[in-house]
Amino acid sequence: MKAYRRLEAAFRRHALVGEAAGVLHWDMSVVMPPGGARARAEQIAELRVLSHEMLTGPHIAGDLAAADAEAAALDRWQAANLREMRRAWLHATAIPADLVAARSRATSECETVWRTARPDSDFRALQSGLEDVVRLTREVGQAKSAALGRPVYDALMDEYEPGADARRIGAILDDYAAFLPEFLDAVLAKQARSRAPVAPDGPFPVAAQKRLCRRMAEAVGLDFKSARLDESLHPFSGGIPDDSRITTRYSKADYAGALMGVLHESGHAMYERGLPRQWRRQPVGRARGMTLHESQSLLVEMQVCRSRAFFDWAAPVIAAAFKAPGPAWTPDNLHRLAILVRPGFIRVDADEVTYPAHIILRTRLERALIAGDLAVADLPGAWNDGMAELLNITPPDDRLGCLQDIHWPGGDFGYFPTYTLGAMAAAQFAAAARVADPEIMAGVGRGDFAPLMAWLREHVHGKGSLLSTDELLREATGAPLGAAAFEAHLKERYLEAA
Amino acid sequence: MKAYRRLEAAFRRHALVGEAAGVLHWDMSVVMPPGGARARAEQIAELRVLSHEMLTGPHIAGDLAAADAEAAALDRWQAANLREMRRAWLHATAIPADLVAARSRATSECETVWRTARPDSDFRALQSGLEDVVRLTREVGQAKSAALGRPVYDALMDEYEPGADARRIGAILDDYAAFLPEFLDAVLAKQARSRAPVAPDGPFPVAAQKRLCRRMAEAVGLDFKSARLDESLHPFSGGIPDDSRITTRYSKADYAGALMGVLHESGHAMYERGLPRQWRRQPVGRARGMTLHESQSLLVEMQVCRSRAFFDWAAPVIAAAFKAPGPAWTPDNLHRLAILVRPGFIRVDADEVTYPAHIILRTRLERALIAGDLAVADLPGAWNDGMAELLNITPPDDRLGCLQDIHWPGGDFGYFPTYTLGAMAAAQFAAAARVADPEIMAGVGRGDFAPLMAWLREHVHGKGSLLSTDELLREATGAPLGAAAFEAHLKERYLEAA
Repeated sequence: MKAYRRLEAAFRRHALVGEAAGVLHWDMSVVMPPGGARARAEQIAELRVLSHEMLTGPHIAGDLAAADAEAAALDRWQAANLREMRRAWLHATAIPADLVAARSRATSECETVWRTARPDSDFRALQSGLEDVVRLTREVGQAKSAALGRPVYDALMDEYEPGADARRIGAILDDYAAFLPEFLDAVLAKQARSRAPVAPDGPFPVAAQKRLCRRMAEAVGLDFKSARLDESLHPFSGGIPDDSRITTRYSKADYAGALMGVLHESGHAMYERGLPRQWRRQPVGRARGMTLHESQSLLVEMQVCRSRAFFDWAAPVIAAAFKAPGPAWTPDNLHRLAILVRPGFIRVDADEVTYPAHIILRTRLERALIAGDLAVADLPGAWNDGMAELLNITPPDDRLGCLQDIHWPGGDFGYFPTYTLGAMAAAQFAAAARVADPEIMAGVGRGDFAPLMAWLREHVHGKGSLLSTDELLREATGAPLGAAAFEAHLKERYLEAA
Repeated sequence: MKAYRRLEAAFRRHALVGEAAGVLHWDMSVVMPPGGARARAEQIAELRVLSHEMLTGPHIAGDLAAADAEAAALDRWQAANLREMRRAWLHATAIPADLVAARSRATSECETVWRTARPDSDFRALQSGLEDVVRLTREVGQAKSAALGRPVYDALMDEYEPGADARRIGAILDDYAAFLPEFLDAVLAKQARSRAPVAPDGPFPVAAQKRLCRRMAEAVGLDFKSARLDESLHPFSGGIPDDSRITTRYSKADYAGALMGVLHESGHAMYERGLPRQWRRQPVGRARGMTLHESQSLLVEMQVCRSRAFFDWAAPVIAAAFKAPGPAWTPDNLHRLAILVRPGFIRVDADEVTYPAHIILRTRLERALIAGDLAVADLPGAWNDGMAELLNITPPDDRLGCLQDIHWPGGDFGYFPTYTLGAMAAAQFAAAARVADPEIMAGVGRGDFAPLMAWLREHVHGKGSLLSTDELLREATGAPLGAAAFEAHLKERYLEAA
């Protein structure tokens, strides 16, 4: 096992450099003064180059080849670790260095243009830069396709969702697209018949919001001896298992956005904290992929913390935080506010019923862009047609349409589907956990998330990357990834519950 | 110039990794939750190993050899850059890897023991660990001595103060040791005859202190679009020229400690900000050494911001910060408080007159330890004898004696002298600047540091590592490093001024 052991040592070093880059990213997003931006981009780029060199050197290729001969001596986790090492190596070595550099430049430039094109609603300004990004991303996809022996879009997705099968994922999304129209009509009709929930009166002082968010993150399971909660423009979860760094943003006019954001990021952080300690800094010890990562944030935010049981406990805590008694602060009212459904143009503001429509649209469009079936010039029209078909609304301009996300200018093709696949996995986990242990939702009703986290640690977090996403789902819930549990959850919450 | 250009590219990458390590260090000292400590140590160690590998690879040695043949084509700055590259390479390659590792382990362990031995005043607990550190540091010194062709202690000092000559430095410190006894008696006698300054009444709210410190740092020249001021246990200055990170610590009972700390660290930060931009990330673009670095912090804190002229402007600003008019807040009273002289046991609390005595003691002892003329077991006795000789006081225990500093447990031998050499250089710069431009101190009296900083940028900051410390001092002040200007400054401030 000499070659395998050398690989373990090399991947440990690789992981440490990745952790260092994570600290630089957190600092940039949370505390860095604007003057540091340019230097920080260069520092992070240098760490990326070093990381890449650490994986692509000749000794890694040699040890991967030699480790195959040692396979019989490896246990189950070691064998999975070797498999994940090879996957990381394939991704790193698949793309020639000049293509890496060209795409990196193109996405940096396109992101910069996007930052002004979006508020100006000026798609023409973005078009030629986005054409470059699409072309170079397609080349990357073709290179990875050759290395992985998989179709181009699958190979792009694989970076975010290992083993992703675009045909199967397309079928799952189509299932939801077929389910949505009639269901959405029924939900909107039911909401229209009901008494509207009452919005609590603000303003909500930011200091009180911060205390509340901290308390809620602690309830979920974060321990602030090894975690931080800060502010950033775009909320995220970073850090390492023993130093979780989550962020949110506060508005005096609305406490719920920050609070739900913190619960969401706490779900991400708890996944990282529950990863198998003995495989720390090894590929098999990492989170399985973006579908499962998003499933953990949405399980906490959507499945658990928009449930009626959660508000039985949380409503008085929230009311006390703002010293605000009154009819708006009842569990029932806060719960109904948390599950309002309203079709809209902006993905990040969408409710859980209409959110998948935004993802289905993007997934269809980005597959067509990469395949060459859709020209970038035709994107605005295709976007608006898709919104009309899926949600029966038409954006008045591209700012509220195809210019709203940073993903494509940043070169992230194949990422969008994981948001909705994560929502579906979350529904599967929630259903299985409720059946496995009635204490789980009873605990949530008392602000005790420990039973839930114990189940997740055993069935999800502690598995790291041992299994594929589907294998893990099958072991934990009895079924591979699919839309059924999610649709059942939505029917129960939005149509059947009192 | 192909080899030289390759070296520039390699050293640029090396500098970027160093900047990344600086971000990790700042984060650890300012915001990191305690749970992250262990992982952070490993992340920083990995970046150090990478840095070391970047300098010690065979291509660097080859390019350094090849660049000699290109010397005729290099301009003055490029030639100096090549010289500094070689110096960095000699330091990196001088020590065998197993010695680097053994010393790193020994200092980590000894620092850990020191953290409890110091409050317990338990020298015996530290002794064997410190013996290991001294022995391994001596071996490092011997290895560097062979590589640099210089005596062992000089070779250790060279890391902090390039080109340091221990004999000359010893003579400068001896000069001050001879000056001090009579001078100190005279200062104490004069203070005893004068009316004692009045300490302002606290408490001083931390929020008001923070606003005041920020305003003062801005007056010195820090621009908070590219700087931060934070809190840490041990104040420091870090970051990069366009993202300065200074820290201080606040006590409600005393605002002056935090304020003077911020002025001190602002001096360090202004040096970094004034380094030559076109040589950013090259060895010749770095600060010259710790003597000049400390000279810049002490120039601002001691020479300028404990002057009477400074308090003419600052006293009303400080009083307004605490909304506290009254007799304690006059420029004269605050100035006299800022220059009180009181011999004491603790170096970091010492005034500028007695501080060098602490340094002289440590320099003599550490030279003897490295030379093998003093056994670690005999350190406490030698320390107390030295304090009695230099300041006529005897520490009641080792906590207030030889256990007070982290430097030796951390393996920093050869660093201490730069504190006092910096104070001496600061006095030389201040005297030369005053003569060169009367506007400099007039500006300080209005809170305008721009004339001072313009002079420093031209004569000190902008030189980077082009010149040796002595060459730079000679060009800027007409004399090499020496005690005369410092002693003249002290006589003027403490005996001659009204």
